[in-house]
Amino acid sequence: MKRSLDGFPKIEVNTQRKEGKALKKEFFRKERDLLGEEAIPENAYWGVHSKRARDNFPFSKKVPPSLVKAYFAVKWACARANLEVGLLEAKIGNAILKACEEGMEGKFNEEVIVPIFQGGAGTSLNMNINEIIANRALEILGYSKGNYQKINPFDHVNLSQSTNDTFMTAVKVATLWQLDELEKEIINLQETLQQKEKEFASVLKVGRTELQDAVPITLGMEFGAFAEAIARDRWRLWKSRERIKEVNLGGTAVGTGLNAHPEYIARAIVHLNEITGLPLAKAMNLFENTQNLDVFSEVSGLLRSLAVNLRKIANDLRLLSMGPRAGISEISLPALQEGSSIMPGKVNPVMCEYIEGIAIDVMGKDQAIAFSCSSGQLELNHLGPFIAAHILEMIEELKLGINAFTEKCLRGIRANQERCNELLEKSFALATCIVPYLGHERTSELVQECLREGKNFRDFLIEQKIFSEEELKNILNPLEISRPGIPGFGKVEVKRP
Amino acid sequence: MKRSLDGFPKIEVNTQRKEGKALKKEFFRKERDLLGEEAIPENAYWGVHSKRARDNFPFSKKVPPSLVKAYFAVKWACARANLEVGLLEAKIGNAILKACEEGMEGKFNEEVIVPIFQGGAGTSLNMNINEIIANRALEILGYSKGNYQKINPFDHVNLSQSTNDTFMTAVKVATLWQLDELEKEIINLQETLQQKEKEFASVLKVGRTELQDAVPITLGMEFGAFAEAIARDRWRLWKSRERIKEVNLGGTAVGTGLNAHPEYIARAIVHLNEITGLPLAKAMNLFENTQNLDVFSEVSGLLRSLAVNLRKIANDLRLLSMGPRAGISEISLPALQEGSSIMPGKVNPVMCEYIEGIAIDVMGKDQAIAFSCSSGQLELNHLGPFIAAHILEMIEELKLGINAFTEKCLRGIRANQERCNELLEKSFALATCIVPYLGHERTSELVQECLREGKNFRDFLIEQKIFSEEELKNILNPLEISRPGIPGFGKVEVKRP
Amino acid sequence: MKRSLDGFPKIEVNTQRKEGKALKKEFFRKERDLLGEEAIPENAYWGVHSKRARDNFPFSKKVPPSLVKAYFAVKWACARANLEVGLLEAKIGNAILKACEEGMEGKFNEEVIVPIFQGGAGTSLNMNINEIIANRALEILGYSKGNYQKINPFDHVNLSQSTNDTFMTAVKVATLWQLDELEKEIINLQETLQQKEKEFASVLKVGRTELQDAVPITLGMEFGAFAEAIARDRWRLWKSRERIKEVNLGGTAVGTGLNAHPEYIARAIVHLNEITGLPLAKAMNLFENTQNLDVFSEVSGLLRSLAVNLRKIANDLRLLSMGPRAGISEISLPALQEGSSIMPGKVNPVMCEYIEGIAIDVMGKDQAIAFSCSSGQLELNHLGPFIAAHILEMIEELKLGINAFTEKCLRGIRANQERCNELLEKSFALATCIVPYLGHERTSELVQECLREGKNFRDFLIEQKIFSEEELKNILNPLEISRPGIPGFGKVEVKRP
Amino acid sequence: MKRSLDGFPKIEVNTQRKEGKALKKEFFRKERDLLGEEAIPENAYWGVHSKRARDNFPFSKKVPPSLVKAYFAVKWACARANLEVGLLEAKIGNAILKACEEGMEGKFNEEVIVPIFQGGAGTSLNMNINEIIANRALEILGYSKGNYQKINPFDHVNLSQSTNDTFMTAVKVATLWQLDELEKEIINLQETLQQKEKEFASVLKVGRTELQDAVPITLGMEFGAFAEAIARDRWRLWKSRERIKEVNLGGTAVGTGLNAHPEYIARAIVHLNEITGLPLAKAMNLFENTQNLDVFSEVSGLLRSLAVNLRKIANDLRLLSMGPRAGISEISLPALQEGSSIMPGKVNPVMCEYIEGIAIDVMGKDQAIAFSCSSGQLELNHLGPFIAAHILEMIEELKLGINAFTEKCLRGIRANQERCNELLEKSFALATCIVPYLGHERTSELVQECLREGKNFRDFLIEQKIFSEEELKNILNPLEISRPGIPGFGKVEVKRP
Repeated sequence: MKRSLDGFPKIEVNTQRKEGKALKKEFFRKERDLLGEEAIPENAYWGVHSKRARDNFPFSKKVPPSLVKAYFAVKWACARANLEVGLLEAKIGNAILKACEEGMEGKFNEEVIVPIFQGGAGTSLNMNINEIIANRALEILGYSKGNYQKINPFDHVNLSQSTNDTFMTAVKVATLWQLDELEKEIINLQETLQQKEKEFASVLKVGRTELQDAVPITLGMEFGAFAEAIARDRWRLWKSRERIKEVNLGGTAVGTGLNAHPEYIARAIVHLNEITGLPLAKAMNLFENTQNLDVFSEVSGLLRSLAVNLRKIANDLRLLSMGPRAGISEISLPALQEGSSIMPGKVNPVMCEYIEGIAIDVMGKDQAIAFSCSSGQLELNHLGPFIAAHILEMIEELKLGINAFTEKCLRGIRANQERCNELLEKSFALATCIVPYLGHERTSELVQECLREGKNFRDFLIEQKIFSEEELKNILNPLEISRPGIPGFGKVEVKRP
Repeated sequence: MKRSLDGFPKIEVNTQRKEGKALKKEFFRKERDLLGEEAIPENAYWGVHSKRARDNFPFSKKVPPSLVKAYFAVKWACARANLEVGLLEAKIGNAILKACEEGMEGKFNEEVIVPIFQGGAGTSLNMNINEIIANRALEILGYSKGNYQKINPFDHVNLSQSTNDTFMTAVKVATLWQLDELEKEIINLQETLQQKEKEFASVLKVGRTELQDAVPITLGMEFGAFAEAIARDRWRLWKSRERIKEVNLGGTAVGTGLNAHPEYIARAIVHLNEITGLPLAKAMNLFENTQNLDVFSEVSGLLRSLAVNLRKIANDLRLLSMGPRAGISEISLPALQEGSSIMPGKVNPVMCEYIEGIAIDVMGKDQAIAFSCSSGQLELNHLGPFIAAHILEMIEELKLGINAFTEKCLRGIRANQERCNELLEKSFALATCIVPYLGHERTSELVQECLREGKNFRDFLIEQKIFSEEELKNILNPLEISRPGIPGFGKVEVKRP
Repeated sequence: MKRSLDGFPKIEVNTQRKEGKALKKEFFRKERDLLGEEAIPENAYWGVHSKRARDNFPFSKKVPPSLVKAYFAVKWACARANLEVGLLEAKIGNAILKACEEGMEGKFNEEVIVPIFQGGAGTSLNMNINEIIANRALEILGYSKGNYQKINPFDHVNLSQSTNDTFMTAVKVATLWQLDELEKEIINLQETLQQKEKEFASVLKVGRTELQDAVPITLGMEFGAFAEAIARDRWRLWKSRERIKEVNLGGTAVGTGLNAHPEYIARAIVHLNEITGLPLAKAMNLFENTQNLDVFSEVSGLLRSLAVNLRKIANDLRLLSMGPRAGISEISLPALQEGSSIMPGKVNPVMCEYIEGIAIDVMGKDQAIAFSCSSGQLELNHLGPFIAAHILEMIEELKLGINAFTEKCLRGIRANQERCNELLEKSFALATCIVPYLGHERTSELVQECLREGKNFRDFLIEQKIFSEEELKNILNPLEISRPGIPGFGKVEVKRP
Repeated sequence: MKRSLDGFPKIEVNTQRKEGKALKKEFFRKERDLLGEEAIPENAYWGVHSKRARDNFPFSKKVPPSLVKAYFAVKWACARANLEVGLLEAKIGNAILKACEEGMEGKFNEEVIVPIFQGGAGTSLNMNINEIIANRALEILGYSKGNYQKINPFDHVNLSQSTNDTFMTAVKVATLWQLDELEKEIINLQETLQQKEKEFASVLKVGRTELQDAVPITLGMEFGAFAEAIARDRWRLWKSRERIKEVNLGGTAVGTGLNAHPEYIARAIVHLNEITGLPLAKAMNLFENTQNLDVFSEVSGLLRSLAVNLRKIANDLRLLSMGPRAGISEISLPALQEGSSIMPGKVNPVMCEYIEGIAIDVMGKDQAIAFSCSSGQLELNHLGPFIAAHILEMIEELKLGINAFTEKCLRGIRANQERCNELLEKSFALATCIVPYLGHERTSELVQECLREGKNFRDFLIEQKIFSEEELKNILNPLEISRPGIPGFGKVEVKRP
């Protein structure tokens, strides 16, 4: 048997490569756990526990990079606290800190071999991270990887910790980071909509309720309404963050803090805030915070409301841009790609469809999160990794989707002012304005009659001598009809019986 | 203490009525269960177990009448089987049969005082039904209500039975009955759509994909597509029935058939088919059939697909009827009620909105059913009553909703043929027809150029000397363009480089 | 033709009653709308628009009484504002106010004949309310019902209003009222759980993660965790209210306030707060508030998180009370009803099942709400009535369910202290406590060995001479092990190699 | 400007690499579409349309390999049909066929640069595939990539096709292939459960309803019930396939078959069956099949029912294996990995949790599919790519998850026979057996009394002289009590009053 420099044994294996020709020597180290011994590639930072988990969970959805980074941050904070409280000797502790820092830089992302869809409430990921840190720390100190007598994934790296406190803490850190990035996109979205609100402020058009012609509005108002809805989402996002900044770090196995020095607990949170730049707080009730994940249902519900607004906006834009010839065409969306492989010149509202698809995916994930949160049992929710996968992917797709939707679609929307005017003129949008003068039922009859005769309503009213042209000008004042009040009030006589 | 004719004690209570004036004497009987004694109104057919349940479950969603009827049918079949096997003496058995028959006629619907949202997997409803039958049978035989020494809700009425077999059997009976009624409405819906398909067979119009003008179609084809989708639902419905006709009657507590005579089991199913007119079958594995309710998830998923189609159809109709002036207006929906309290003459697509609201409600219930079915544990699914409530309400609202949608909306739809033609002419729907002659890219450029110039595409092509008027006539043959093939093929020369 | 006292015509109809014998004279009045004339029972407060809607929407889910009351309140506030601004003459206005007040008292609940599942975005309900008010006001002033020349449902009752502003405003009022009542039940729930937390503070037991024996905790801690989760729901409820107190009253058709005097708008909100006792505010952007219903998705998501917690608590209680003999039995739930029609003496956790069924129903409704909110189009969400139905029913069932769950189940829970202790002693819950002394891997091996030998872990450790009895006493100190820190630290020597 | 061998221009770009040192020359070709010109890496098989789409849709969920393979198969079939009908000249057609064959082998998987989450109803993927084929065919014939005058992605590769027919056809092909693989896993799952059914056939134990002790059963029956439920899923899977084998290939843009020669259509399907080995059929109504995707809602609902069963089974196994000391422990699951980073020796039911997480994810995706299917509009459902992503991922995770669950968990389950017997003996599971002799109420009282006294029920009955030991032996016959019938019937005297 060969041995490494520090005397740690390694196994040589002659591997015949696929192509069948070259002989390649590969080296392995032995690691063992409760279930027995396993050969681990000599250079791997991951170890036997990672291998077991990877083999157990075949569906390969990767752990989101933000969660990997967050987990290394948590480990860093715990190591510092252990060091300061004197539970970890300096040499080992410093090597661990160094390993964590490299991990935060993304250096070991490929060494995270367990997928995020995993049973076991996150222990697989925790052990994968623990093993990476232990082996990198061993390497730093000049030891062989796998020489866990020197630095042990459990006793040194995981010291004072449990999966049950570190995992959900890391998930919250990652979520908060991701929410920060999402916020930037939401702000950009809102501002872009506000620009359009201004740009289209004077484009008068027909408003529609239940897809039927209603009363006059401006196109700017429509974009203003989109912006206002998104402003609420911005507020929601802020609320979201507030709700998940309470972490159970220090609670260990079930939140009682068993085997965690009280001083360690206090320091671990402080260091976690330092390294993450986040305002995390120790939960008042660590025991409770460990077992209940309803805050993720809450946050998911808030993000889902963002999806609700995005879907509504996207569908409105698709309706307003129906055409180009046989639809509404009040606005034009930027052309981004040819829309058809068979219909020449066709351009589709692809970004609206894209964001709608994402919105619906978010709603589906939201339901999975709610079900999962409600399925926790006793001192732990065993579905934490799935909840983490859903919430982080949800934020990621919203973030990327909103950016693309804003930059590639919204920013380039143009108003077709003439078309807006044409449809407004044709419609009965003005009928409501004359109700104060004629009463509801009389007006109603006039609308129906005019509709049957296929005439322009304004012309019809004059022709029928209901109003003079002068009176109608006073009533149908574009400025007034899109504001509160009775257009023409005081200037036109009430004609009700 | 007063006594009834058969010597059964009754209690007199002076009740001062709300209004405070009249003194009214009310009589009660005493009943007892494990928890103690309760006073039950002398005339009530329900007893102490019903009372407990009613008091425990305050949210008053009524047991659907179809389920009440079905439960009496199940009890009738069991009583007959018990009689024939000799477990029940004739006098008692016949009184029970009579009581069940009256129950099936709806005579005791008001005596079902437990709500359908109930804990306990249906025992409350089973006991409510058992008590009604016992007391009515006592009455028939001249005994006092409550005189359970003579006829006992457990030992006589519930003989050889458990809630766990009778409840889900009754739910399946009710579901099958309801599905029969739903089928009639689906057939009517499909036929109405087919009539419209014929009626609109020659109305040429522009087809739209992704809400953008695509290629020529006929309005009849659109209604034909609706009809075809609904035909699939009809098939699904048939499949639905097949899946839930297997019942666990005779399985008693957990499906082992403990305390149920094998001969009784065989006969009970035969009698149940006789009284219900349904082709129910004894499940091969009664034990399994008792604990797993995934067939309700399956049936719910099939009904949900009906909802999917209804929502799509309803939304298409709303799009096509957008207007009346500033929208698409290719069709007109019948006016059913005034659409606005402020906008005179406005008529809204209320039935389309109605059926969409129902469809979405069905989708929500479907999710509740799936989650409930997956939450069964070991030998029973404790959420049976909730699943029953959801599935029966789902079918009820689909049944009523479809009828109203068909009769009040679909049947009266009119085509606006001129408008269809106008939009088709304006559109580039014809561009795809000339691709075989010019190639995709050349045609694409022509479309874009024509769009910029705001011209009619046909005129533009002639003006640009791309095609002669004669050639275009051959290509743009309405009959050909809505059928497979290359319009004008062989008559017009290919002009590609 | 007969005439009423005020000369209003009425129609006499001889109705042959079902039973075929007696002839009964019934009187009708004629009303008309766009679609023609209809006979309305002379005494009905509802009119032709209500009739149309009732006939259009057959699925009979009743308008929740809280919404009826809220709508009358909105009408009252609008009438007062119209009066004050001089748009309504005093005599008519005061009669309208009186009618609204009676409506708020529930006097006309039976006159609300339209179901809550309705197309048309609420116009049917608005018109039903308008007609009731008009007819009652007519009656108050001595006119015949239906004499709309005097008091008109549109021109007087609905003056300055639209369905699109009054309906959702009324829904928000009803929701806020209902949330107030729900809050009381949540507070009661939380307090009851806190009482149990105290009551069981000293009951030591084994904690379980992933349903496997973990580390020692107290039963009180478990109830404390339930209470803490519910405390979060209380906070959420408060947040819920804040989000929907912004109303669009005064926005009329699409939120532009067309036909609504600015002074009227300001006053209407003030009066609405006065009559409802709520702190409603006029939305900053009435146009936006009219078209977007994402706040209901948000509130629904918050209520759904309450359902998430309720389901988790209920399922924990079911697990802990599994038994009575062959399960966990750490606690006993109160017996509320006999649990089986076949298994004597069986008592089931019916209230836990009840609240779980409700929780899952809430999750399904939540999904329907989210879908519906995302399906709004342009200036209005046409599914408002469905959203209203879902959210109000959701709160109602949570309110009633929580009350029953708290009072009938939680309050009477008893701890089985001996059983808790027995299971704790048998378990390896103490193993984690000795890790600081032996290291993770050594302890792990000892646990596995002891498990194989089927011994008590404490005895095994002494027998194997790993620890002395004295040392174990120091480590396994019940007080210390349920608190942060390393039990025995400083008193027992570390034995790691 | 440089030129390729065939004279096609290429652009040389000096790229300064990140590290800043080496200058590397890269070559590009120019491609153009409606939006203008783009530089494409010379060696890329994808072209300008792929690039546009990749840039538009940033969320990088990869197109499933099964869909890539299926799309090449569809293209192969269409090319053959075009060749045979004479629309494509032999040289070009054969090169295209060769390119498709290589694509099916996975050779171009990395050239599929568009993500599956995409707007545009699949045009991006179709064009990506078209471009790969065109460029590979060009290469085969010795032309430069990008020389689309020779072989054009639209006019040659996409000839007689549209995205709207080829995309959903390819999705159905991929789905059918995936379902075939899933079926193998379901069969394996079912067989494994059946083996356990036999293995545990004689392990008597207490059955539990609503988590409360009920009546005696065998452990084998429990596994038999699992197997039976899965048998239903196998049947469902078969049904699933039947429902999506109807394709709209040949329908082109909206299903009318515009520009597709009827002979081509017939041949394309035949060739597709040949190359895929599937029994696809041309839909009766191509127009309808193009626009409605409700079959995916149907199939998803069937797969969701599989998820429902998996979740139920997994949770039952977790309950039965609760322990190892303080729970039920009737069975032991295989140990697969250490369960805790802090609690030594802890082993968790990770595979049960894993499959539950997957099941809930499937339920969430199912909801997204249903909502997406219901959101189609007019002649197309624009959300096809999202539906494809959900359904294919759903099958993939079920397939892998079931395999792991079966092989790593189910296969190794062991019964703890002694524990089963111990709990059965302690329970009141036998009480139901004596009801036929004592009546329900008397038995009920005895159970309650015995429970209070904490005695063994059998001993208690003898002690109380209710039954003799001999009688109890006749009644409590293990063989009889798990089968239909009244144990001891005829041998023991009825003791009811």
